[in-house]
Amino acid sequence: MIRITVWNEYVHERTEQKIAEVYPEGIHAAIAEFLGKEEDFEVRTATLDDENCGITKEVLAETDVLIWWGHIAHDRVPDEIAYLVRDAVLEGMGLICLHSAHHSKPFRYLLGTSCNLTWRESDDEEILWVIEPSHPITRGIDRYFKLSHEETYGEPFVIPTPDKLLLIGHYSGGEVFRSGCLYERGNGKIFYLQPGHESYPTFRVPEIQMLIRNAIRYLAPAYRQVTACPHVRKITDNAPYVI
Amino acid sequence: MIRITVWNEYVHERTEQKIAEVYPEGIHAAIAEFLGKEEDFEVRTATLDDENCGITKEVLAETDVLIWWGHIAHDRVPDEIAYLVRDAVLEGMGLICLHSAHHSKPFRYLLGTSCNLTWRESDDEEILWVIEPSHPITRGIDRYFKLSHEETYGEPFVIPTPDKLLLIGHYSGGEVFRSGCLYERGNGKIFYLQPGHESYPTFRVPEIQMLIRNAIRYLAPAYRQVTACPHVRKITDNAPYVI
Amino acid sequence: MIRITVWNEYVHERTEQKIAEVYPEGIHAAIAEFLGKEEDFEVRTATLDDENCGITKEVLAETDVLIWWGHIAHDRVPDEIAYLVRDAVLEGMGLICLHSAHHSKPFRYLLGTSCNLTWRESDDEEILWVIEPSHPITRGIDRYFKLSHEETYGEPFVIPTPDKLLLIGHYSGGEVFRSGCLYERGNGKIFYLQPGHESYPTFRVPEIQMLIRNAIRYLAPAYRQVTACPHVRKITDNAPYVI
Amino acid sequence: MIRITVWNEYVHERTEQKIAEVYPEGIHAAIAEFLGKEEDFEVRTATLDDENCGITKEVLAETDVLIWWGHIAHDRVPDEIAYLVRDAVLEGMGLICLHSAHHSKPFRYLLGTSCNLTWRESDDEEILWVIEPSHPITRGIDRYFKLSHEETYGEPFVIPTPDKLLLIGHYSGGEVFRSGCLYERGNGKIFYLQPGHESYPTFRVPEIQMLIRNAIRYLAPAYRQVTACPHVRKITDNAPYVI
Repeated sequence: MIRITVWNEYVHERTEQKIAEVYPEGIHAAIAEFLGKEEDFEVRTATLDDENCGITKEVLAETDVLIWWGHIAHDRVPDEIAYLVRDAVLEGMGLICLHSAHHSKPFRYLLGTSCNLTWRESDDEEILWVIEPSHPITRGIDRYFKLSHEETYGEPFVIPTPDKLLLIGHYSGGEVFRSGCLYERGNGKIFYLQPGHESYPTFRVPEIQMLIRNAIRYLAPAYRQVTACPHVRKITDNAPYVI
Repeated sequence: MIRITVWNEYVHERTEQKIAEVYPEGIHAAIAEFLGKEEDFEVRTATLDDENCGITKEVLAETDVLIWWGHIAHDRVPDEIAYLVRDAVLEGMGLICLHSAHHSKPFRYLLGTSCNLTWRESDDEEILWVIEPSHPITRGIDRYFKLSHEETYGEPFVIPTPDKLLLIGHYSGGEVFRSGCLYERGNGKIFYLQPGHESYPTFRVPEIQMLIRNAIRYLAPAYRQVTACPHVRKITDNAPYVI
Repeated sequence: MIRITVWNEYVHERTEQKIAEVYPEGIHAAIAEFLGKEEDFEVRTATLDDENCGITKEVLAETDVLIWWGHIAHDRVPDEIAYLVRDAVLEGMGLICLHSAHHSKPFRYLLGTSCNLTWRESDDEEILWVIEPSHPITRGIDRYFKLSHEETYGEPFVIPTPDKLLLIGHYSGGEVFRSGCLYERGNGKIFYLQPGHESYPTFRVPEIQMLIRNAIRYLAPAYRQVTACPHVRKITDNAPYVI
Repeated sequence: MIRITVWNEYVHERTEQKIAEVYPEGIHAAIAEFLGKEEDFEVRTATLDDENCGITKEVLAETDVLIWWGHIAHDRVPDEIAYLVRDAVLEGMGLICLHSAHHSKPFRYLLGTSCNLTWRESDDEEILWVIEPSHPITRGIDRYFKLSHEETYGEPFVIPTPDKLLLIGHYSGGEVFRSGCLYERGNGKIFYLQPGHESYPTFRVPEIQMLIRNAIRYLAPAYRQVTACPHVRKITDNAPYVI
């Protein structure tokens, strides 16, 4: 059983009529719905307005993969919560950051850069191209797939060079973007997936759902352990190495 | 003084009227022409029909950066010549592979993969986006520039993950491509630049010329040495380490 | 079932008494023996003196992971055989290169560099340190383990920067070495493991056996496909993309 | 002229007699002294007790490369100061973190991981091996050099895979360590160098001085610019791209 927590700031859907029509129960509910159909997935959700944002040390200890969606309320997530997420990833937990979560605290604190990008809302069509066809995350996706409308994200995207670049997006307005980026940090893995703007039903697109399912199975840790900073003995001391 | 050798198979330009009109003296001459305007560059050219393809151990020893263009005659370059180029790169020489040189022997032998890609000739417009604005190779290039027509290259491009991805191309036909890829191999550096199809005047575009000039200056070695496989002594032996 | 082929040049063991005492049936037999105890492994062996070195397109098509040991007879492996191995890896087959196979044709042709290193036979003790404790290949290995004697390999090791560095070796004579290096090339993965000199019973050490078992399970492909160089249509053409 | 600021927490040298004997004027003064002999270097120092730790936006704007040494007072550097350093690096400033600065705020905030390691003070001898002999930072260093005593640092070192691993340390107590690690983040570069414990005269060793001088020249930016997150127009709009 892979234990998944879907986190959503859940602001747009409750304050803007147009967004509510796309995701009436919230983006987290839409994601949890299609994930809930998998027999090996156990899904719960959490949102900004939950106590402690729904993120505690205990919740993270029971989460194999955390999915994060946020946009206009990144700053309302306390640093302490973001540090808990960061530390859980370094311990082994998987983290999937969706779309505007490029600017979320957990993503920025783990990558260390500004994660800035260029952007435009102009109903561009996006074509997503698979760069690594044999990777477990892109398995089952054809050479490319289309999203009829997405928010345009453009380069430069101020991130560390991804450990593996899996997808590049092509926008009808002329931009390109590193749309699927994989990182390993500490004992954990992080996957950034660019599509998922609140005003389009992107999370109902079969290929997007497949990418998220694949990523969950790839990021779920077999091993989870804090790698501390121990004082050690000489290995010739005939005593435990770590003091 | 940076010593540059521009190698071109020089077949299309002598056998196809349409290509001859674009590059009457050959692609190598067009490249040598704009490079020759730089005071710190010393440029010579070599082509497939020269004796030994114009590539000998001596020529490579006096070449800081080798530029390579080839397309339909890759197989007519003897393996021995390709190995000389490979070994010169491992020693420190810079290598710039242009466009269809993705399938050239020197490039494939140095990268080890098939370097396959998808392709189409359909007069697509290409927009090239800078991914790393602070890199010496992209210095002076704006966020993007356009080529009114280029051959379309598409992913997957079967290369090792580039040490640094500098440019991504966006084609009006829908494709994207990793158009500027930097590698370090042994003591040398390799830059792959995708634009440069024989039927378009790409090498007359100012930004393409700037990228090639920048790449030459970045790839020119300060150090050149064969890293051999020496039998060594214990470092406590009070004798030279390498036997 | 993971199908494994263990290839060994099998020269030392038949020509040197001292080596024959360590590996009377050959290194390949010693490796096949401990691998044969795994229920999910199906193991066969091949050696230099077999017809076609025991390596044909058919054998490779039925091999999920190929293990390669060679030392003094690298040149007796025909290029055609090495190319078959290379192409199978690009298609998805896993390749584990052991010890002196750093200079084998399949390894060099896939990595493109000289793979030179410094070396000494002086019965050094080696301590192998785990750099990535959460990686599937190092799973189950403690922080370090010792080999009472190994051939000393030293830096610089002329390889492309590994996609992931898993182990570093520490020799009592003073050297260090990147002893466990992971690469992805095309659709396949390559693991280089430094220990395994013919004159020491390294392949009987439990941690070495565990690393090889782990690597086999990590490298076994779920997907295997030639990524060709197709001529493609415009994606708007309402016809199959690949021509 | 390359403008260098050497930052030191300057606590050990003022509170421990033994350390004061090694660096009577402080580690920053010892570093500034040998750097001051270079004609193209302009050096200033700053310490924890200076107003604002001696680090303001103005100071960083006039600093090409910042050198950082800290150990027991990392937490006394306010987050705001660490963020200024981080942002200056993303803009293009070079950052050299020495020894125990692996746990400094600027280093951890830029890399995102815990930067934990194992450690022991046991007067081990350290041998430092050059992994990349052609890199500008290791230029002039032989295959290896020795430090008669250094604090032992051991793996796992919880850092992102370095963009380039330049040095590996070998300790007489048995450990190994990734002792020279290069990163690119945003428009800036970061170099981590492991030697430099407060109780040994490491910064008086010629090879250490050479590595630091080389690193300064390699990290000094030719270009410095904030890469922001601009709202952009369609590139067909015949208006400035960035709104």
